Amino acid sequence: MTAEPLRVIPLGGLGEIGRNMMLIEQGEDLIVVDVGLMFPEEEMLGVDLVIPDFSYLRAHADRLRAVFLTHGHEDHVGALPYFLREFRAPIYSTRLTDGLIRVKLGEHRLLAEADLRVVAPGEPIQAGVFEVEFFSVAHSIPDACGLIIRTPLGALVHTGDFKLDHTPVMDQHTDLIRLAQVGAEGCLLLMADSTYAEVEGYTPSEELVGEALRNILVNARGRVIVATFASLISRVQQVIDAAVFCGRKVFVTGRSMIDNVQMARQLGYLNAPDGVIAGVEEMRNTPLERLVVVTTGSQGEPTSALTRMANGDHRHITIAKGDTVVLSATAIPGNEQAVYRNVDNLFRLGADVLYNRVSNIHVRGHASREELKIIQGLLQPEYFVPIHGEYRHLVVHARLAESVGVPKGNAFVLTDGDVLEIDDEEARLGDRVPASYVYVDGLGIGDVDQHLLRDRAHLATDGVVVVIATVDKQTGKLARTPELLSRGFVDVEEREDLLEQGRQVVANSLRGAEHYAEFSDINARVRDALSKFLYDETRRRPMVLTVTVEV
Amino acid sequence: MTAEPLRVIPLGGLGEIGRNMMLIEQGEDLIVVDVGLMFPEEEMLGVDLVIPDFSYLRAHADRLRAVFLTHGHEDHVGALPYFLREFRAPIYSTRLTDGLIRVKLGEHRLLAEADLRVVAPGEPIQAGVFEVEFFSVAHSIPDACGLIIRTPLGALVHTGDFKLDHTPVMDQHTDLIRLAQVGAEGCLLLMADSTYAEVEGYTPSEELVGEALRNILVNARGRVIVATFASLISRVQQVIDAAVFCGRKVFVTGRSMIDNVQMARQLGYLNAPDGVIAGVEEMRNTPLERLVVVTTGSQGEPTSALTRMANGDHRHITIAKGDTVVLSATAIPGNEQAVYRNVDNLFRLGADVLYNRVSNIHVRGHASREELKIIQGLLQPEYFVPIHGEYRHLVVHARLAESVGVPKGNAFVLTDGDVLEIDDEEARLGDRVPASYVYVDGLGIGDVDQHLLRDRAHLATDGVVVVIATVDKQTGKLARTPELLSRGFVDVEEREDLLEQGRQVVANSLRGAEHYAEFSDINARVRDALSKFLYDETRRRPMVLTVTVEV
Repeated sequence: MTAEPLRVIPLGGLGEIGRNMMLIEQGEDLIVVDVGLMFPEEEMLGVDLVIPDFSYLRAHADRLRAVFLTHGHEDHVGALPYFLREFRAPIYSTRLTDGLIRVKLGEHRLLAEADLRVVAPGEPIQAGVFEVEFFSVAHSIPDACGLIIRTPLGALVHTGDFKLDHTPVMDQHTDLIRLAQVGAEGCLLLMADSTYAEVEGYTPSEELVGEALRNILVNARGRVIVATFASLISRVQQVIDAAVFCGRKVFVTGRSMIDNVQMARQLGYLNAPDGVIAGVEEMRNTPLERLVVVTTGSQGEPTSALTRMANGDHRHITIAKGDTVVLSATAIPGNEQAVYRNVDNLFRLGADVLYNRVSNIHVRGHASREELKIIQGLLQPEYFVPIHGEYRHLVVHARLAESVGVPKGNAFVLTDGDVLEIDDEEARLGDRVPASYVYVDGLGIGDVDQHLLRDRAHLATDGVVVVIATVDKQTGKLARTPELLSRGFVDVEEREDLLEQGRQVVANSLRGAEHYAEFSDINARVRDALSKFLYDETRRRPMVLTVTVEV
Repeated sequence: MTAEPLRVIPLGGLGEIGRNMMLIEQGEDLIVVDVGLMFPEEEMLGVDLVIPDFSYLRAHADRLRAVFLTHGHEDHVGALPYFLREFRAPIYSTRLTDGLIRVKLGEHRLLAEADLRVVAPGEPIQAGVFEVEFFSVAHSIPDACGLIIRTPLGALVHTGDFKLDHTPVMDQHTDLIRLAQVGAEGCLLLMADSTYAEVEGYTPSEELVGEALRNILVNARGRVIVATFASLISRVQQVIDAAVFCGRKVFVTGRSMIDNVQMARQLGYLNAPDGVIAGVEEMRNTPLERLVVVTTGSQGEPTSALTRMANGDHRHITIAKGDTVVLSATAIPGNEQAVYRNVDNLFRLGADVLYNRVSNIHVRGHASREELKIIQGLLQPEYFVPIHGEYRHLVVHARLAESVGVPKGNAFVLTDGDVLEIDDEEARLGDRVPASYVYVDGLGIGDVDQHLLRDRAHLATDGVVVVIATVDKQTGKLARTPELLSRGFVDVEEREDLLEQGRQVVANSLRGAEHYAEFSDINARVRDALSKFLYDETRRRPMVLTVTVEV
């Protein structure tokens, strides 16, 4: 009997960064790997978050058997609150990931509805025809895992986000032995992290960062402030270790950093001797040269603690000469301007600032090319799908795979919504499924569309002008001089003349006609005349809205 | 007799990138170095360009003796058309710079008004008390220069943008011998390019890029498309040389690339044997493997030739499998998303894309740290001002200067509008002068202010809602149900209910009162009630504009 085809369906994270989500289905069974969110790009004006398109899953919800989360980063778990409004299934993750999503679901009051199950690497989980096993990987958050997914057709391996690190901070190695065993049994399909598939060589170990931080804390003559990702628990551990080493106290600031540190300590993921972590009062009474501050804001987020310090309006910390600020993170693409604005402002306040371009205080959490080759060598997969990355990363990764042994034509560069069908003879692309961006804006989920974004972009560029034409309902003619109202277009006090002329232009545009049957005629005529006039005068194209009032 | 103090006044380019301009004055004489523009940052919504603030110069125009332009890049000459509307003085530059600004001033119909004077390095120019001499520097455009400015107090050196390149493409070395002579005579003040003051070591030579391009052209089996800056004439020369070497024809596309290539050939800055450069017809009749295309668009500019190719709507060139696209440029900060979107789209169309992260096809035009130290060593200045760079670059450069011999306290980190006063005893900061951003938006120069930009940001985020309240002029009460009009807020067809309820909220907000003395009372009451309702319902805050019409 020929098994039904296995279908691999990425709904996010392929051809873009973030919003990772993948469906894997065969016959009557469907499982989900990760339910992530993406932060909006520049042109997604006013959008808060972007989540995956659940349409296909909605139509096949009866076949959903389980959800597997590889690790606790927002781009892998952040869309869970939206997912849980519609779907029910057991949600499997390792311990710290579970802790992080409990915090998040608690905030959304969805904890009661979620069937959360903690698993350890190596435990097999049955989900329909699939048997899924987590395996440990090194990444920039503890308890990160990849997945071994056994199917009737063979074993799939999904790496999640990973790198190889032979001297990790919290003993979290990528489990090469387990991967070698799967390779020996035979790997049907490998799906591997492509984020740094462009980067030659090896990603350095976290150990390097530990040394650099310790040197900074030993040598700084004043207070040291370290900014990093709130989820980068291992980095926080390194700061605590360095602080203990040189007798400094640690003050934690920034809402998400405080929450994560507390949760990680409770779950035993952070090891801080008694008395090392200081509250506000103790911090105030400690000499600056005996202090380290750990803070959020490494991405220049506008309301983060570090940005508040850089702007001189943090409640507890006033930056001054003698302070050393360490940005232990790289700027995620799109955040560069905000990050460097903070750096500049901190320098202006007199601090010394160490950041990635001048110091060795961050390593990436993703595998570089030589590491990717090792994974290929251990698994020797029949088919390969590069995952997690923008399109160019996927292309480069697919080429790498073919260069080290994946049969020519068996590396598939998929993008979101593509369907890879595998049976016991071949793999091929099936019909695509919907995978558009679903925008979250305020309470609205999916109601912001391209049309609305185009209007926002238009408003952003040249503002808005509202024309109010009062029309006599008997004669159909203008009853009085039209009014103009504008915002974001010109300085209305300085350009009173322009708006006055605009009123005349509107009036003239309606002169001569006998009677307008339709308001829409009036509106179109007014809009065209006024738009042209304003463009000729200013070379700007404000959005012109016309309102006709009958009197 | 004590000389009057020398005053150095940066109006742009210090603490930011671009818009370079500096005033140097002593007694009755004032000279200008560079008159550049800056491209708008993300939050400068709808702004086309940013130019320097001319207020101080306006008040002292009678003392203006001359303008000196270091090289032809937009961030050093781009604001000239705006400058020339107000100021008259001889404008000195070297030959190619002069050619470039003639093209630009011609477009602005300002050529007749400009007193342009071509000078060669080494020629002394008298401008009031100042004697100014250009000296050659290596940079990413031919004829780039720095300035030696002799004053009654001593010699100043302004490097312009530069690097050291011992094997430059067009024989354009940085004149180390001339600098050494000035150093031997005594250098009062050095002002040096800080753009890459963070980068350790040496900037590689242009020679490397030549080799890389030749290898690509030799090995590519199809058409090669090279995108770079239109002003990077030496890179275009390298492409032509490589094309000649391997028997390819060169097709040039993109308006500014076509103009610059033509101008550079006329002036003798580009050396292309007859028959190498092909027109559209010849290009069409040439096999793809015998073609190189040189194009604009290396920064992902939306209307550039490369972006049109990446979007599949270039008039002459359709990207296909077999094409190799070379991005011979780095993404300027802020342009990353646009650049990488093009890379992704070109990959999607089947091209192979070589860009800086995967290939060695661009070198920077600015000096790295070891080069900066050499300049310090040759000049051994008494005072130092780092120029051209964001604030952190200036800080890092000032420290570098102090580490190699500038006396402690004699390196001044200035920002735009600061005034450095030097007399024969000391240097100190004087009172600041105005140096705000002057925004150009369409025909408006300086009329876009923070208030207008805040309005645009508000409109961009959540759109606009216009309320039209029709009030009976006898009773002062609502004459009919208010109307609502919205753009960029919600999908008006989907949320008919919300707008309907909004109308009721407006009506209710005006109920009960007897008579409104002022429209402003009505407007404020309506705005508050409706804003609150809409926020509660959507968690969005559109701009609410209210119009009251009396009937």
